[in-house]
Amino acid sequence: MEKKKYNISVEATLEVIGGKWKCVILCHLTHGKKRTSDLRRLMPSITQKMLTQQLRELEDDGIVNRIIYHQVPPKVEYELSEYGWSLQPILDSLCAWGEHHIIKEYGDKFAVLEDNILNNKDIGLATEMDQTAKEEETSLSKN
Amino acid sequence: MEKKKYNISVEATLEVIGGKWKCVILCHLTHGKKRTSDLRRLMPSITQKMLTQQLRELEDDGIVNRIIYHQVPPKVEYELSEYGWSLQPILDSLCAWGEHHIIKEYGDKFAVLEDNILNNKDIGLATEMDQTAKEEETSLSKN
Repeated sequence: MEKKKYNISVEATLEVIGGKWKCVILCHLTHGKKRTSDLRRLMPSITQKMLTQQLRELEDDGIVNRIIYHQVPPKVEYELSEYGWSLQPILDSLCAWGEHHIIKEYGDKFAVLEDNILNNKDIGLATEMDQTAKEEETSLSKN
Repeated sequence: MEKKKYNISVEATLEVIGGKWKCVILCHLTHGKKRTSDLRRLMPSITQKMLTQQLRELEDDGIVNRIIYHQVPPKVEYELSEYGWSLQPILDSLCAWGEHHIIKEYGDKFAVLEDNILNNKDIGLATEMDQTAKEEETSLSKN
């Protein structure tokens, strides 16, 4: 196997989190564990196949953990691994810069950010709502 | 024109600095102004056409400035704009994480980082050498 060569260390970072989707997935995971159905709802333009592939690559690189709940019906969730959490400051900064950029370009972030729980002003409330939604989902799938 | 919609603000960031090359170009520019020939030397696998396109997009997004020196022969350099410099903490973190990742994967960053002035241990010396190299280049092009 030929040894990798990088001209600058950022190339190694981009090998792990580069591409159109990985940073988006990882930013969503900084808000908590997600099922693939959650991620598809949060990323309507990604295909199931592409999502699965990205998650597998992130898992192979040790960035996310795949948690399998042995229950009926079986449930799988993804979370940032301990190593994945080392990316959190970068992911937070990427989100913050994007918000700043949206405000610069459009004047108002709420005009272009889809109305979803992540973009609520009150993050505490969002997390709480997210939790409630998840509990409802679980309770529904039980019935 | 249909209005943009983002599901999460990081998508706006990736529109500006996403893709295979832009972060690499920008990281190089955090070390100082560069001519396209400098960038091609630092990024041997990028084509001239791709580099030109990436630089134009970064210029259109207000991230880099194109400086034209009206001299014979004419000289063009690229630098981070003031807005581009707002990405510096992110770019530095991406480089630092990559270095950390390389050490984790390979044990020694010097084994996989190409031997160029940017990767020297002594950054002060590197900058000085870069400056000397540039002066030599200028003096050569004058002769």
